[in-house]
Amino acid sequence: MIAEIIAAGSEMLTPHRQDTNSLFLTSELNSLGVTVAFKTIVGDNLDHLTGAASVALSRADIVIFSGGLGPTEDDLTREAAASALGLPLIRQPELLTQLAERFAKRSFVMTPNNAKQADILEGAEILPNVNGSAVGQFLATTRPGEPGTRRIVILLPGPPRELKPLFTDECRPRLANILPPSYIAKRVLRMALLPESQVDSRTAPIYKQYPDVETTILAHAGEIQLHFQAAAATLAEAQARVNELAGKIEHEMDEAVFSAQGESLEEVVLLMLGLRHLTLATAESCTGGLLAQRLTAIPGSSRYFLGGAVVYSDALKTTFADVPAELISTQGPVSEPVARSLAEGIRARTKASIGVAITGIAGPTPGAGPDAAKPIGLIYIGLADDRGTQVTELNLMGDRDRIRWWASQHALELIRKSLI
Amino acid sequence: MIAEIIAAGSEMLTPHRQDTNSLFLTSELNSLGVTVAFKTIVGDNLDHLTGAASVALSRADIVIFSGGLGPTEDDLTREAAASALGLPLIRQPELLTQLAERFAKRSFVMTPNNAKQADILEGAEILPNVNGSAVGQFLATTRPGEPGTRRIVILLPGPPRELKPLFTDECRPRLANILPPSYIAKRVLRMALLPESQVDSRTAPIYKQYPDVETTILAHAGEIQLHFQAAAATLAEAQARVNELAGKIEHEMDEAVFSAQGESLEEVVLLMLGLRHLTLATAESCTGGLLAQRLTAIPGSSRYFLGGAVVYSDALKTTFADVPAELISTQGPVSEPVARSLAEGIRARTKASIGVAITGIAGPTPGAGPDAAKPIGLIYIGLADDRGTQVTELNLMGDRDRIRWWASQHALELIRKSLI
Repeated sequence: MIAEIIAAGSEMLTPHRQDTNSLFLTSELNSLGVTVAFKTIVGDNLDHLTGAASVALSRADIVIFSGGLGPTEDDLTREAAASALGLPLIRQPELLTQLAERFAKRSFVMTPNNAKQADILEGAEILPNVNGSAVGQFLATTRPGEPGTRRIVILLPGPPRELKPLFTDECRPRLANILPPSYIAKRVLRMALLPESQVDSRTAPIYKQYPDVETTILAHAGEIQLHFQAAAATLAEAQARVNELAGKIEHEMDEAVFSAQGESLEEVVLLMLGLRHLTLATAESCTGGLLAQRLTAIPGSSRYFLGGAVVYSDALKTTFADVPAELISTQGPVSEPVARSLAEGIRARTKASIGVAITGIAGPTPGAGPDAAKPIGLIYIGLADDRGTQVTELNLMGDRDRIRWWASQHALELIRKSLI
Repeated sequence: MIAEIIAAGSEMLTPHRQDTNSLFLTSELNSLGVTVAFKTIVGDNLDHLTGAASVALSRADIVIFSGGLGPTEDDLTREAAASALGLPLIRQPELLTQLAERFAKRSFVMTPNNAKQADILEGAEILPNVNGSAVGQFLATTRPGEPGTRRIVILLPGPPRELKPLFTDECRPRLANILPPSYIAKRVLRMALLPESQVDSRTAPIYKQYPDVETTILAHAGEIQLHFQAAAATLAEAQARVNELAGKIEHEMDEAVFSAQGESLEEVVLLMLGLRHLTLATAESCTGGLLAQRLTAIPGSSRYFLGGAVVYSDALKTTFADVPAELISTQGPVSEPVARSLAEGIRARTKASIGVAITGIAGPTPGAGPDAAKPIGLIYIGLADDRGTQVTELNLMGDRDRIRWWASQHALELIRKSLI
């Protein structure tokens, strides 16, 4: 069975808004063993929407519409689906009553245009929507002239907080009843900083031996994810295949794998600090709080992350981390000795087990004074703990945002490796 | 003229990846006076792609394909477009030579599958691609049997760094030559923190008087944007209409408008600090560096933003901002007096003109000790300058990420208002 998702709404045909419901729906459909073969985005235009519905019905077994179920003139999904299916819309008196009650409860007047929200495709089940006024619709039928061929049409409201529970609570059980049982197991391995091509060349010889496990490599923002998915006659069997492959790849990539159960790099670092009863503090120059912000985004981080300083100006490097002013003026703030002094200074000031410092040139403006000849992308990361202080020099590529992000990513990875 | 964008690639039919090229293409097409009526996302399957191409050719005047132009078996856009158009693909010897040179330059062997990148739709112009091996194609023709009806088919490679310059440099001038001239003016007004419904109810009576100006309200992450766009016979006329409406709305919303030329809230705050020769420092507890990170993301921020402290633990509030330990233990770290002391302390320590402090309960875990009875979402923002110190209390809704973001947004808006 293949599915098509039709997202209705002119706002998704502007440069400003994108359909995101389809990502959720795709994940849900995949887990039911259904492949999404087409996604169509179409505006609030009856001809266009009816045309898109006809095309979808001709090429997919399951067609899911999102959006266009509200009360306004622009809400045309019901009409388009009915026209493409050649089915009438039947106004449901009990839905009209519910709508009237909904308005009365909020002391609003129900304007006449709302009545069309009670129009249901002939033969469709009503999917009650506790989060909004537009109900969903579920129609399980067969293709015209092909009595053995399933055709499923689903209408869902566009707001994600209405669409998601309606799919999970109402559509998923109905689809699971209709579709052949599907047992799908998943696993994700996560790695930081490695080039995608290197991960692929090391892992492809392994995952190609598992043609029954679907392997996807995703690279984004200094992280590589390997997604594994397998279907089998039982869940245990599917899980065993996925685990066997993931285990072999973990063995090959070894310490590069920071997470085998889905945790983020920040979570892993905090977890490892917790296991060793250690605390961490940061002193950030070019990343300006990005590293601290990433760590504190994790709930419960306050137990192991004490805080630190954003030492953006030279003076604050002295004020908050006791870096000698002379060291800064002679070596430049972007230098190995300053990174070392910053890491040691912030560790001493905060009494943390580990002090981490980042100083560098994020661009687009070059450094000044003693840093004038240093290239954009030059970063020093200092890490001070009870074994001493190590400074790592990096030469990062890209724009300001990318350089800052990768610097914070390298810092997290250095902390993680120091804790292994 | 209406356009359809077809994004080819199975990865965009997974839950992990989304087509984003279409946002860029839509913006470009809109500025040429062309409306995008359909977007289709389809996988690397010849039948599906050919079907999608046929549907698009039947309902749109301009069809743009992105992706599927590489050398692998999965790259099928050329074949699908040719089949749907009923045109042959002609292998171009000069492109073959260029491909071979490209490989030789990199000391790679050109495998035979690469040759299909030299296949061009009969009658199409070749769009040279300096950033990759796959050239674009531009075919301006007419509908079969309708000699007066324009039909334009464009094939572009999928990677954004190849697609964007190819469209801007090669397709845009060709389309501008073919399409009737279009003069479109745009303007954006940006506001922070206000509810969308309030902005709409105050501005709708104004923008509804300008039916020739397209007004769009976008709300996202504590910011409201009003986008205006108008088309007219000359650019000056279009700009005058947009400016007249934007001016009236700016007058109505007054100081709530932080940006009338598109600058971000961070940029506006830094610009205002610069105009007044003032400096800023921050002390962050629950936002953990988010405010500093947002300010330092702006190039040149180091002239007005000195840095500050991430005072996540209670002890660091004393270490870095001289908040009396007794004040914290009696009032709780999330309290009006601690926010006041933090703002004053960070200002004194850093010698900044303005000190800003954020302390609060971001959740999901509640506060402890003297903060135990305080609700999640309670935030205090202190702002200390040469006129004294003000503390603002907020009760924010949502999850940890939302509370932290909105707290940083409120802090920026408080700084901006203090500088007006």
